[in-house]
Amino acid sequence: MQGIWLEDRRLALRTDLAEPARDGEVVVRVRVAGVCNTDLEVLRGYRPLSGVLGHEFVGVALGDGLLGGKRVVGEINIRPPGCTCPPCARGDFTHCERRVALGINGHNGTFAERITLPFENLHPVPDSVSDDEAVFVEPLAAACEVLEQVVVRSTDRVVVVGPGKLGLLCAQVLATTGCDLTVVGRRPASLELACKLGLTACTADAARPGNDLVVDCTGTPDGFETARGLVRPRGTLVLKSTYVGDLTIDMSRIVVDELRLIGSRCGPFPRALQLLADKVVQVTPLIEARYPLAQGLAALEHAERSGAQKILIDILS
Amino acid sequence: MQGIWLEDRRLALRTDLAEPARDGEVVVRVRVAGVCNTDLEVLRGYRPLSGVLGHEFVGVALGDGLLGGKRVVGEINIRPPGCTCPPCARGDFTHCERRVALGINGHNGTFAERITLPFENLHPVPDSVSDDEAVFVEPLAAACEVLEQVVVRSTDRVVVVGPGKLGLLCAQVLATTGCDLTVVGRRPASLELACKLGLTACTADAARPGNDLVVDCTGTPDGFETARGLVRPRGTLVLKSTYVGDLTIDMSRIVVDELRLIGSRCGPFPRALQLLADKVVQVTPLIEARYPLAQGLAALEHAERSGAQKILIDILS
Repeated sequence: MQGIWLEDRRLALRTDLAEPARDGEVVVRVRVAGVCNTDLEVLRGYRPLSGVLGHEFVGVALGDGLLGGKRVVGEINIRPPGCTCPPCARGDFTHCERRVALGINGHNGTFAERITLPFENLHPVPDSVSDDEAVFVEPLAAACEVLEQVVVRSTDRVVVVGPGKLGLLCAQVLATTGCDLTVVGRRPASLELACKLGLTACTADAARPGNDLVVDCTGTPDGFETARGLVRPRGTLVLKSTYVGDLTIDMSRIVVDELRLIGSRCGPFPRALQLLADKVVQVTPLIEARYPLAQGLAALEHAERSGAQKILIDILS
Repeated sequence: MQGIWLEDRRLALRTDLAEPARDGEVVVRVRVAGVCNTDLEVLRGYRPLSGVLGHEFVGVALGDGLLGGKRVVGEINIRPPGCTCPPCARGDFTHCERRVALGINGHNGTFAERITLPFENLHPVPDSVSDDEAVFVEPLAAACEVLEQVVVRSTDRVVVVGPGKLGLLCAQVLATTGCDLTVVGRRPASLELACKLGLTACTADAARPGNDLVVDCTGTPDGFETARGLVRPRGTLVLKSTYVGDLTIDMSRIVVDELRLIGSRCGPFPRALQLLADKVVQVTPLIEARYPLAQGLAALEHAERSGAQKILIDILS
């Protein structure tokens, strides 16, 4: 089997990969995979993965089970069957203490011809949603997570900092509430793309301060500082990106302004699928380039470029 | 007038202070003042105060107004009359953009014979609440602020880190919800005092992890790290102390665990007065020592001692 293998922080396109072991899971033939910033962070050593990289995908479930022959997308947090750790007991399955994560930690990922996932992780894709849309379900679900954590009122003033691929998904999800939304960024190309998606966008200097909710999708200390400066006292600051390394912050500012900081990670797949089926979120304009699996290393190099939007890998091309 | 004057980070007991200018405010004769950690931070330069230090007090309102002759306590955030800045327009008066703060910033404080405060800042003290109890209303209100920010369920597991004077008030306030509460600290004397107040207390090593809510009352990087380690995924971490200087934190931990960090400052005086009137919170066991105003500098030195609980200054002694 062909796939992109990571070991000792080195990537290799291999054609000799063993078929993934089923272990009671469903085998999925991957059709399209997406490159996420987290993949790039795993490359840099954020998690010590030794295996196939990648976690965004759309594919076809194999076998004669309930999902056999159906197009599917899949949640990336994999918990042992019947786990009863405290988060699982609460129903917080994405926080299972014994979890592994597809293509990130302990489970081979989606930059390969076939993967396996537990049946409970898979969601069938409606016919009205194309492969190129469905491959966005995982990051779109992460964007939807904000609405599971914060009540956004239609009268709220909201800012998304960082119009990268995740930021533009977050902004479109938040816009569905009818709130007064602004996207804040630095690169003209990203701001232009935001405008093409029907969003209001500007640079940080031009942004109105005193916002009720600010979502930082930059994952950088500068981005965090910009976000903090745009939120009103008693407002909410959502941290939507993984921050690599430690961040030094003026915590007394958080206390004096009584801010709420909320970390936000994986989200609800059904909500993301619904948004795509309803055509209220546009994802395909975010596709910057696509590569066949045989050129997967070039795909990852492209994704490393500053300001790159979504890079897809066609597994079956 | 006698009072403790701060200028260029130097304290002096002065007897030549001018009477505070009324400017449409109510003059209050201070009876007892309390020393807060914030006073010590102002001493260290947290705010560039040039004036009388101190913000915790109980006193008697002078003049023939509605409050004349009555015992009063007072809120410390002073906004210009009729201010319509965005926080004031929202009713977030403690976040007024043009506020000054009693004994902290721009308004002479309570370590003096007389102060002035706007009528709207003052609250009469019920006869059933003694002076030594009433002087705790300001910090007790700050402790109550947590309940204005977070819904605490009786089934929640809650930890207060830092059994200092503010921590022991927070713990008693949180205990009123019937939650499963533990106080975590290092000093045997503080843990003993917590137990005397009817609280469960232990060291961090002995504390159960995975708590729904953790309140950090330490204001130190170590305390923050202890608090973070004790909160469950998707749990809430309240920052109840001013942190002096910057804090370096692993923000990706906040994101991966989807924690909520909430800064918490001044709180509701009516709720604190009610708790004292109902005798459900014990404050006088926190009094470690008291000094007459003439020995006010010794009072502040005592408050600087590691592990010191509440130090009072008797203004009329």
